[in-house]
Amino acid sequence: MELEEIIGTLAGIFTTGAAVPQIIKAWHTKKVNDVSPYMFFVLIMGVSLWTLYGILLEDVPIIITNGISTCLNATMFLLIVKYKRKAV
Amino acid sequence: MELEEIIGTLAGIFTTGAAVPQIIKAWHTKKVNDVSPYMFFVLIMGVSLWTLYGILLEDVPIIITNGISTCLNATMFLLIVKYKRKAV
Repeated sequence: MELEEIIGTLAGIFTTGAAVPQIIKAWHTKKVNDVSPYMFFVLIMGVSLWTLYGILLEDVPIIITNGISTCLNATMFLLIVKYKRKAV
Repeated sequence: MELEEIIGTLAGIFTTGAAVPQIIKAWHTKKVNDVSPYMFFVLIMGVSLWTLYGILLEDVPIIITNGISTCLNATMFLLIVKYKRKAV
């Protein structure tokens, strides 16, 4: 494996998995008041488009990483919607 | 401009700019208790590595978008550190 591949793979794992600690935090505390729903909405738009980009280019790593990102960010967005309501 | 280029450019703008609404929210409310610092730490690691990946491949769009992302996520991380202390 070349150096670029190792760095690219690590970079992909980090940017894809970044939402996980935020999901765990929101899940445990049930508090999302300080989290911006717009951030996750824009992220979902972005990673969905990256997934579409991967599909057009038939690039499997782009499809997989951004597909996972879309699911994770959508999960966080749903948690925001769910717990925002409870706080009202 | 080809369809893939348009979609890739839009995707890049969205994923790069996603941190902006969170930064604005934290800046105005001065509250970051529900935001995961680990999310932004992992994001910084990821986009820094993508920037390095762009440098190794001499790919200017990757360097620019991820360079901006690194700055934005680092700004948010610093706001978390700053306002977490005030809350204690």
